[in-house]
Amino acid sequence: MSERLGPPLGAPLFDRLALIGIGLIGSSIARAARRKNVARVIAIADESTQARDRAVALELGDEVVADAGDAAAGADLVILCVPVGADEAVARAIAPQLKAGAIVSDVGSVKGAVIAAVGPHLPRGVALVPAHPVAGTEQSGPDAGFATLFVNRWCILTPAAGVDAAAVAKVRAFWEALGSNVETMNAAHHDLVLAITSHVPHLIAYNIVGTASDLEETTRSEVIKFSAGGFRDFTRIAASDPTMWRDVFLNNKQAVLEALGRFSEDLTALQRMIRYGDGEGLFALFARTRAIRRGIVEMGQETAAPDFGRPHDEDGDGGS
Amino acid sequence: MSERLGPPLGAPLFDRLALIGIGLIGSSIARAARRKNVARVIAIADESTQARDRAVALELGDEVVADAGDAAAGADLVILCVPVGADEAVARAIAPQLKAGAIVSDVGSVKGAVIAAVGPHLPRGVALVPAHPVAGTEQSGPDAGFATLFVNRWCILTPAAGVDAAAVAKVRAFWEALGSNVETMNAAHHDLVLAITSHVPHLIAYNIVGTASDLEETTRSEVIKFSAGGFRDFTRIAASDPTMWRDVFLNNKQAVLEALGRFSEDLTALQRMIRYGDGEGLFALFARTRAIRRGIVEMGQETAAPDFGRPHDEDGDGGS
Repeated sequence: MSERLGPPLGAPLFDRLALIGIGLIGSSIARAARRKNVARVIAIADESTQARDRAVALELGDEVVADAGDAAAGADLVILCVPVGADEAVARAIAPQLKAGAIVSDVGSVKGAVIAAVGPHLPRGVALVPAHPVAGTEQSGPDAGFATLFVNRWCILTPAAGVDAAAVAKVRAFWEALGSNVETMNAAHHDLVLAITSHVPHLIAYNIVGTASDLEETTRSEVIKFSAGGFRDFTRIAASDPTMWRDVFLNNKQAVLEALGRFSEDLTALQRMIRYGDGEGLFALFARTRAIRRGIVEMGQETAAPDFGRPHDEDGDGGS
Repeated sequence: MSERLGPPLGAPLFDRLALIGIGLIGSSIARAARRKNVARVIAIADESTQARDRAVALELGDEVVADAGDAAAGADLVILCVPVGADEAVARAIAPQLKAGAIVSDVGSVKGAVIAAVGPHLPRGVALVPAHPVAGTEQSGPDAGFATLFVNRWCILTPAAGVDAAAVAKVRAFWEALGSNVETMNAAHHDLVLAITSHVPHLIAYNIVGTASDLEETTRSEVIKFSAGGFRDFTRIAASDPTMWRDVFLNNKQAVLEALGRFSEDLTALQRMIRYGDGEGLFALFARTRAIRRGIVEMGQETAAPDFGRPHDEDGDGGS
């Protein structure tokens, strides 16, 4: 496993890659891009001194600066790796520095709002090719990234109609080099699908963990203790970055409210089945949901190992 | 790691152990009990021919029979490892065969209803010590079990007031021998805590996977494709045994409806924050839910590895 991402490409796809924001996603891109030799120079910008110090210590790039414009200057590809609520400010900051022919992209979980926020600030001759790598972990920051994060995960591109096809092709090649499977769709459709597959699941997870944390002290400690009954699965995604997720919900309001409406409607029906003891109805639902997981495992988007392949303690001392 | 559960005890705790039902939990108990030499004889009963065939092939016990009464006859400890809705019928079937001084236990996720269903059928001189090992995976059947399933997991005993203390102590010793940490509480409190930590999480997971499976075909296939954004976590517990979970909801109706009421109330508040763009409110919730996961990891009930320690593909070919 000395070469985990396969052999590097011949000539780098880009001469200068600028990553604005060096958190989990930005730092994973930096690591993967370096390993695959996708860019000759990797320039990193982050407002946080702490993040920059880590980026330097981890040798994530060739230049590490505070100002987004400085990193973007002369770059062939600039990727915004900040929470989507910060995209507009970054776009304003980098716009004067962008060279003709530059490509601007991002990694946000929301696409319609990003196009609206970033697009108007970009000069003519700069292509906006928004991207969403559907990958991540619940951890945050430059230390949390790793080079194989995007391998065999989907990356969705949502260029607006009329965007330079060559620019789209280069962004596609970039993500394919990082190991992703690339799909293209329009931003509105992306936001609808992701509301179901990602945004509402996160909201529900945050919500139930919040409900539990509102319990009185004694019960709350029991919830933590006995969490292996199912609850702990939810706490993983409810440990995700709060700023990122706040911005997702504020920027995909319509699709999230629509998906949440369906969810609540279905939950009310389920609640009614429980109240009236409709065992057949419950069984029917519980049986058909298994097929969806099978599909996910078959598509290689999930491990087939039970319990996510979590380690099961092998020693018999039984802990505390 | 040749002896993963530590050295076997001296003399077996029980002469004859009867396991009624040989699914995930029953077969895990059989494996662990054998490895730890907790019982001299392990008798297994299961109504299903297929399950019995697997139990024989896997050498899970010394006797494998169809009739619960035959397995229970002469047993010192009888553990009901069937969905809780089947407990009453099993209790009726085994009652005439139980020897004086026998202990009857179970592994159900609901305790009040089990005591009500089983207790009245047991003869005098037989102690009922209900147990709930808070452990499991989404898989079912005799092949899914493994000996270390209960190691460092909690097992909750809910004996009614006045039950023979020596019997409770023996059941405690049994679960400790299997690697569990044992806690005792009353059945009603158990059912309330588990409604939050297990039953409602399962219900919500089943519900969102159900919502997704009701989408039109095209969107549904996209949900499967892009499930790595969060959704796939929910599909794990929504792949759990439908019969077991139907019975849980039918038998813990009151506590589940109460917990679900809190969840829905909180979700409505969250929905309102999204609708009115209350970023501060969202951030505040998303930030405080992180502490709960930290507590779970610190208590050794969850892996600290990102993404549950799921394997990340190390090869750069990127799949399809």
